Amino acid sequence: MLVVLSGGTGGAKLIQGISEEVDPSELTIICNTADDFVLHGLHISPDLDTIMYTLAGVADGSKGWGIQDDTFTTLAQLKKLGAETWFQLGDQDLATHIMRTRLLREGLPLSKITARLNTCLGVKATILPMTDDAVETRVKTSQGEISFQEYFVKQRWQPEVKEIFYAGVQSSNPSPGVIEAIERARRIIICPSNPVTSIGPILAVPGIRNAIKTANASVIGVSPIIGDSAISGPAHKLMVAQGHEASALGVAQTYVDLLDSFLIDKADEELCGKIQRSGIKTSATSIRMDSQAEKRRLAREVLALADK
Amino acid sequence: MLVVLSGGTGGAKLIQGISEEVDPSELTIICNTADDFVLHGLHISPDLDTIMYTLAGVADGSKGWGIQDDTFTTLAQLKKLGAETWFQLGDQDLATHIMRTRLLREGLPLSKITARLNTCLGVKATILPMTDDAVETRVKTSQGEISFQEYFVKQRWQPEVKEIFYAGVQSSNPSPGVIEAIERARRIIICPSNPVTSIGPILAVPGIRNAIKTANASVIGVSPIIGDSAISGPAHKLMVAQGHEASALGVAQTYVDLLDSFLIDKADEELCGKIQRSGIKTSATSIRMDSQAEKRRLAREVLALADK
Repeated sequence: MLVVLSGGTGGAKLIQGISEEVDPSELTIICNTADDFVLHGLHISPDLDTIMYTLAGVADGSKGWGIQDDTFTTLAQLKKLGAETWFQLGDQDLATHIMRTRLLREGLPLSKITARLNTCLGVKATILPMTDDAVETRVKTSQGEISFQEYFVKQRWQPEVKEIFYAGVQSSNPSPGVIEAIERARRIIICPSNPVTSIGPILAVPGIRNAIKTANASVIGVSPIIGDSAISGPAHKLMVAQGHEASALGVAQTYVDLLDSFLIDKADEELCGKIQRSGIKTSATSIRMDSQAEKRRLAREVLALADK
Repeated sequence: MLVVLSGGTGGAKLIQGISEEVDPSELTIICNTADDFVLHGLHISPDLDTIMYTLAGVADGSKGWGIQDDTFTTLAQLKKLGAETWFQLGDQDLATHIMRTRLLREGLPLSKITARLNTCLGVKATILPMTDDAVETRVKTSQGEISFQEYFVKQRWQPEVKEIFYAGVQSSNPSPGVIEAIERARRIIICPSNPVTSIGPILAVPGIRNAIKTANASVIGVSPIIGDSAISGPAHKLMVAQGHEASALGVAQTYVDLLDSFLIDKADEELCGKIQRSGIKTSATSIRMDSQAEKRRLAREVLALADK
């Protein structure tokens, strides 16, 4: 059994590679939901959807979100009706949010809805939201407190970040199957996702971090940072705001109690020794995944490390 | 001031004609909302939307519902996700339902939402829902009690109808402006809409029927029935189920306390005398509106009758 912790973009790339290397019935992805938000009255789960679309083979890989070749007819009309349209929602993508919102209102938990949507789209791996409870990443900026999507998409991560917290996380519970999957895992992979806003919330759900720590599995991480910048997105800025160093070393330190091995980019090779001194076996490779071949090659390296 | 009572299809045709003959600032349409229903968690107001799209110049006249040249991308995807898709919802049309549902959940009354949507689409006439309260036409059939949309669209008005009632109507109130518009009207037109499921619910909202009865206006009706069948839809079947005769005479009888004049089709000319004996001036003309020219011609005849 293989358990993968993931956010959206970077995680989706590695997961795409992994899905070509392992039997989907052995693969469980525990997905961040602290970026979920409500727009146009619809419940949107960006990370769950990116992973679902990726594994369904319909993801728009070039944009990193949404469904490939999607159209934006409803959104254009919503704009005419006075709606804010800073968050792009395609017509096919909208069906996911409409269905999820309806089922949530009918009282179904997010984990059951996620399972149902994935089945309908032919996804054979298991995708679990980290929790069925409402947890929300809030960003305190120099211009006030905003949601992560407002910070990330609407404001294009430009405001100065003072602090980040996960509202509601203390009283949240792992969704059904999360702890069980970790306990049964032989390999656990922490994706090259944002440590503050993607992996951070997952590990902050009471019980998850400890389950990983005590699991009888090898735990492998991949850095989302090369040099002092994230491969994509604002991870480096948010790490600094949270008091971490914006580097592969900084990422390793946030997972120091969890990782057996860590993969960093070959450009950061000089950090290997430093990270190893904290007890984490560290190797350098190319961690960019700009092609299908690179995703698969990195997945193979990660899986090989886990099997060592 | 001109007040028009209307449902969807037939009413929309006459209203399109009327809108070309009168100043939109003088035109108020009181619209049936008892066909409103929730599908995919979205609040759909078919009659309000048909009238809005008609006056915005974007209605699909050939289908009689929805927006012209609309696409059905989201609906096709909803089908993949397991949704029922017996009710067609176009991508542009969906924006209306998404926005309405969001604003209803935010606590805005339907009348305010309707005004906002109409403004956004450039509609200059006033469209008022008959009520801001939940009123629902329920159809008791040989196969059980269903909503009007299930009967009309899903079951294509095939089940035998035993009874029709408007759930919630007794405790409903006319929406703001409805009574005032009727009181200020010089002309009131009852559209060739279904007397049981379109005009019936409007007149059943406490206060509306009486306001029309006592209004200082000439009240003109147009028959939706030629011979013993409705021009479109199941009006004749529903009239029989409610104990009325399925004919222009039967329609006139349901409005006998309201009408000054009634327009019926020239094919029914022999009914003129019978209807006149109930105190309603009746004339025969062509009431079919298959072309723009016919809509406008009939609108002119109706307005001329009102001005007599």
